[in-house]
Amino acid sequence: MGILVGVDLGGTHLRAATVTSDGQAGPVVRKAHGREDARTMAAAVVALAADLAKGEPVDALGIGFPGWVVPGTGHVIRGPNLGWMDEPFGQMLRSALPGARVVVVNDLKAIAWGESRFGAGRGAKVAGVVFVGSGLGTGVVTNGVLQEGATGVAGELGHAKVAIDGEPCGCGQRGCFEAYVGGANIDKRLRAMVRDGKVPALLEAAGGEWERVHVGMADAVVRSGDSELSMVWQEIGDLLGLALTAFASVHNPDKLVMGGGVWTTCPALREIATNRLQASLLPPAWDAIRMVDATLGDSAGILGAASLAASR
Amino acid sequence: MGILVGVDLGGTHLRAATVTSDGQAGPVVRKAHGREDARTMAAAVVALAADLAKGEPVDALGIGFPGWVVPGTGHVIRGPNLGWMDEPFGQMLRSALPGARVVVVNDLKAIAWGESRFGAGRGAKVAGVVFVGSGLGTGVVTNGVLQEGATGVAGELGHAKVAIDGEPCGCGQRGCFEAYVGGANIDKRLRAMVRDGKVPALLEAAGGEWERVHVGMADAVVRSGDSELSMVWQEIGDLLGLALTAFASVHNPDKLVMGGGVWTTCPALREIATNRLQASLLPPAWDAIRMVDATLGDSAGILGAASLAASR
Repeated sequence: MGILVGVDLGGTHLRAATVTSDGQAGPVVRKAHGREDARTMAAAVVALAADLAKGEPVDALGIGFPGWVVPGTGHVIRGPNLGWMDEPFGQMLRSALPGARVVVVNDLKAIAWGESRFGAGRGAKVAGVVFVGSGLGTGVVTNGVLQEGATGVAGELGHAKVAIDGEPCGCGQRGCFEAYVGGANIDKRLRAMVRDGKVPALLEAAGGEWERVHVGMADAVVRSGDSELSMVWQEIGDLLGLALTAFASVHNPDKLVMGGGVWTTCPALREIATNRLQASLLPPAWDAIRMVDATLGDSAGILGAASLAASR
Repeated sequence: MGILVGVDLGGTHLRAATVTSDGQAGPVVRKAHGREDARTMAAAVVALAADLAKGEPVDALGIGFPGWVVPGTGHVIRGPNLGWMDEPFGQMLRSALPGARVVVVNDLKAIAWGESRFGAGRGAKVAGVVFVGSGLGTGVVTNGVLQEGATGVAGELGHAKVAIDGEPCGCGQRGCFEAYVGGANIDKRLRAMVRDGKVPALLEAAGGEWERVHVGMADAVVRSGDSELSMVWQEIGDLLGLALTAFASVHNPDKLVMGGGVWTTCPALREIATNRLQASLLPPAWDAIRMVDATLGDSAGILGAASLAASR
């Protein structure tokens, strides 16, 4: 067997490593990109994979992609961060790497597969993976099968709607859970509050510069007892709890693997959301759940994507 | 191969038929029950199956059950309509029918399996089945695999929450989608409105007797142009649309098989909910969906339960 390579294609960087079949990643190489078009990006990915393979043939190449991808072909329907629409990205990679198994998969599904095979989701019947980062994304692995949906867009919990004509979301719609609980949107809201003269403790924590305000900083201010921000946190945490309730009501996971920048850096928000989930979920569904932190960090997507490619 | 029997255990009746392995149900026998305890009910089910088998051995017995059931064992966690808690119903049936394959499964999951194998969901990669009846229940079959969840309570979309401290639901919690869009709760709300002197056209449609008001009658009054009731319908239909949006955002079905008494008898409500789903769902998820009506009617659960038992 040749070399397995996993790639995490982020909004600003490519991150890649060789991966063993039992889920050990080699050193992660990080390379900036300029949000190139799909063809240029495909060439960059293939060059990076060849570098990592050091002259050996690349047997399998898996790529976690931030957007919507057609299962099987790796055709990109939309990559909002890269400005891509309708790009045959998988085919471009396959042409450049004849003989290799190539998989392009949504980034959260790569992470879900990685955590479920090699990380915090191991041993679960139904591993539900929820990342609360700049957005809100999920992936589910049921009895060893990744749930991609009919056309690759399963798991879009962040764009389920909590309100009619609610807050605008980056996706172009309104009232999405992500519009309220995604880190990018929380940051925006906090900065607007501070500019309006609200929550002086938060401006102080940011050294007087409202542009530096972010969600983790706000969580610390909540923990220090700020009552104005605590009310905002209650509202956001409750909504995150309702999103988790919808997810767990539908999937009935035995492990709920949680990760993402907001989840990791905001213990106060996490507590509100967890309490709301416990209060809102049907008891037999709550009793089934073990909530655990994701354990693979930044390599989850790299490992997951490579493993998916190797299993094709 | 011996006889396959499918049973639909409803709140007031047992309905059962023999089923062929290719999904043809024989004549359906309907038998009232008095919400007996689990042991008495198990005896009644076994007697009914023996009657249907006419002296042949029962090879497989599948039962759709209105409640939460542990996959595999058929242990009933809770059957609210029957007042059952923690009953080893599957084991009781197995003891009475040694040698037969016995499956007890949540009623909506039996229907989902039936519609997916033999009805409107045939050929789908991801068949999402949603029934809006007295409650709101769902089932999903993904690439030929019924999604039961880790402990058998997947698909409880009706008990995802749309509000904190919202309307009370029959499950004992508050703010469930079902509290707003389930037929039993809509009926309650309509009757309370009529008793308060609201929507005179609805009382008229009910022949002056508020106890006779029901959701299908109200839909006709909405279609006749009653503006007061149309506003209520907009609210309920929008909430049903948001529930469908959560379901389809998470599962990305290519067929959305719709059924249940409310869905079937309320074209005005259905139109509002469908429009809301189309407006709220991410475009690639909406584009993937064909919404179709369930086609097997009352035999879906019987066929599905029998087929699940036969496939064990």
